[in-house]
Amino acid sequence: MRTADSWFIEVFDGKAGGLSFYIDEVLYEKQSPYQNIKVVRNAFLGNIMLLDDLVMLTDKDEFFYHDMLVHVPMTCVDNPESVLIVGGGDGGSVREVLKHPGVRRVVLCEIDGMVIEAAREYFPALSSCLDDPRVEVVVTDGIEYVKAHRNEFDCICIDSTDPIGPAVGLFSIEFYGSIRDALTDRGAMSAQTESPAWSLDQVSSIVKNMRQAFGNAYPYLVPVPCYPSGLWSCTLCFKQDRNPADVFDRDRAELVSQRCRYYNTDIHRACFALPNFIKQAL
Amino acid sequence: MRTADSWFIEVFDGKAGGLSFYIDEVLYEKQSPYQNIKVVRNAFLGNIMLLDDLVMLTDKDEFFYHDMLVHVPMTCVDNPESVLIVGGGDGGSVREVLKHPGVRRVVLCEIDGMVIEAAREYFPALSSCLDDPRVEVVVTDGIEYVKAHRNEFDCICIDSTDPIGPAVGLFSIEFYGSIRDALTDRGAMSAQTESPAWSLDQVSSIVKNMRQAFGNAYPYLVPVPCYPSGLWSCTLCFKQDRNPADVFDRDRAELVSQRCRYYNTDIHRACFALPNFIKQAL
Repeated sequence: MRTADSWFIEVFDGKAGGLSFYIDEVLYEKQSPYQNIKVVRNAFLGNIMLLDDLVMLTDKDEFFYHDMLVHVPMTCVDNPESVLIVGGGDGGSVREVLKHPGVRRVVLCEIDGMVIEAAREYFPALSSCLDDPRVEVVVTDGIEYVKAHRNEFDCICIDSTDPIGPAVGLFSIEFYGSIRDALTDRGAMSAQTESPAWSLDQVSSIVKNMRQAFGNAYPYLVPVPCYPSGLWSCTLCFKQDRNPADVFDRDRAELVSQRCRYYNTDIHRACFALPNFIKQAL
Repeated sequence: MRTADSWFIEVFDGKAGGLSFYIDEVLYEKQSPYQNIKVVRNAFLGNIMLLDDLVMLTDKDEFFYHDMLVHVPMTCVDNPESVLIVGGGDGGSVREVLKHPGVRRVVLCEIDGMVIEAAREYFPALSSCLDDPRVEVVVTDGIEYVKAHRNEFDCICIDSTDPIGPAVGLFSIEFYGSIRDALTDRGAMSAQTESPAWSLDQVSSIVKNMRQAFGNAYPYLVPVPCYPSGLWSCTLCFKQDRNPADVFDRDRAELVSQRCRYYNTDIHRACFALPNFIKQAL
């Protein structure tokens, strides 16, 4: 499952498969202190980044996820100027943040410098934004970084791997509490919160942790073809609870969406509609 | 890829994979005059029906698709009494139609009687509704059946396989014209119209055919984890054009959604919101 000219299957729950694809070429493979990093090429999906053999992103569909992780919280904050991305070393989330006029500073806090290195070489359309003068790249543990900052960020996006391995701590009540403290009073955060189709218990326990730390949590849906089941969730939390519909900056959303392939104002409203089986679990 | 104790990969576009899973057991395999039919078992997904090695449905996620193919058009028609399902031999769509009070007659027109046979044995939760006295099962070519009926059905759902093999004709302008003629004046139809994430050109050409035949077409989205990319589209057409929002029967939708795992009134509104890349193509 790791060599060129063979099929890769992302194994899920032992017996089901997430994305599968033929590996036309292995472009990059290194073991970092945190994880195994690979970039492989597939004719249909483009370049694909794998961390510990889990698909993180593909050229073909990265915009679904990045648009929704970033623009939903960003348009629910009044004039966000200072933004933090935790994880997301590929640069896709930073690229989206920079589409918002008024942003003065974006910190990318990625624990694994080799993810950034791989992205700079094989995902230039995502990572090139890291050279923008407003961007500060910090290679360190997000948990420690967030603890050390208070009332500083108007928006924080947790662009993490799954809650196994290096990212476990990024799903804890304690970490969400630090995030809340690191936000300005008008601030909001978003995080990727796993698949409601195939891991609903996990989504539910993450959202519960967020509710405990923030006193509010608004899960929303985004299709991500390259993730297991293709149906993913993100969750929005406010430092000071508000109704997402009331604080939505429609003008900025319309402006930004002109440069988006997925996000627009209809999608923004629609993504909070949850199917019965998800609503009941959350 | 066909025996127990091996992995199955649904090959898409030669090099990408749709659903993949470990085959714990092959429960049924027959060659009908139309296609190869298999039912296999996977511990995570339950029973899975494959037609010509393409995944048609799994126990785990069949409700996403059936809810949305059926309840969206059914709630956009005033008091539908007479309903036709073209394809859908598994019975899942018929089961959903019968949730609507007022339905007096449902015709299931499936070309391949062996699909019904396999479903009766291995998907009883879907197929048992076929014994309801309001249901008439007709094993014949949908194209011929529809041609022979005029102004007869208040709602028609095309629950077909992909536009290859036996189902090609179910995506033609001519067939959509016959569907229009088979509808009553207040009638609407829905059809599965492929993946906008991975086959946008195909979606676009199907919707174009529908617009030519009906003069209107309203594509909407539904996540279907077991189909390639996990993001699927259906399309709604009216015999006499109307705004789906204006004709939506919210009371009936609320009643029906109490017995649905996916569908509800929020989802009904939300499903018509299309991402930019899809809107631009359609």
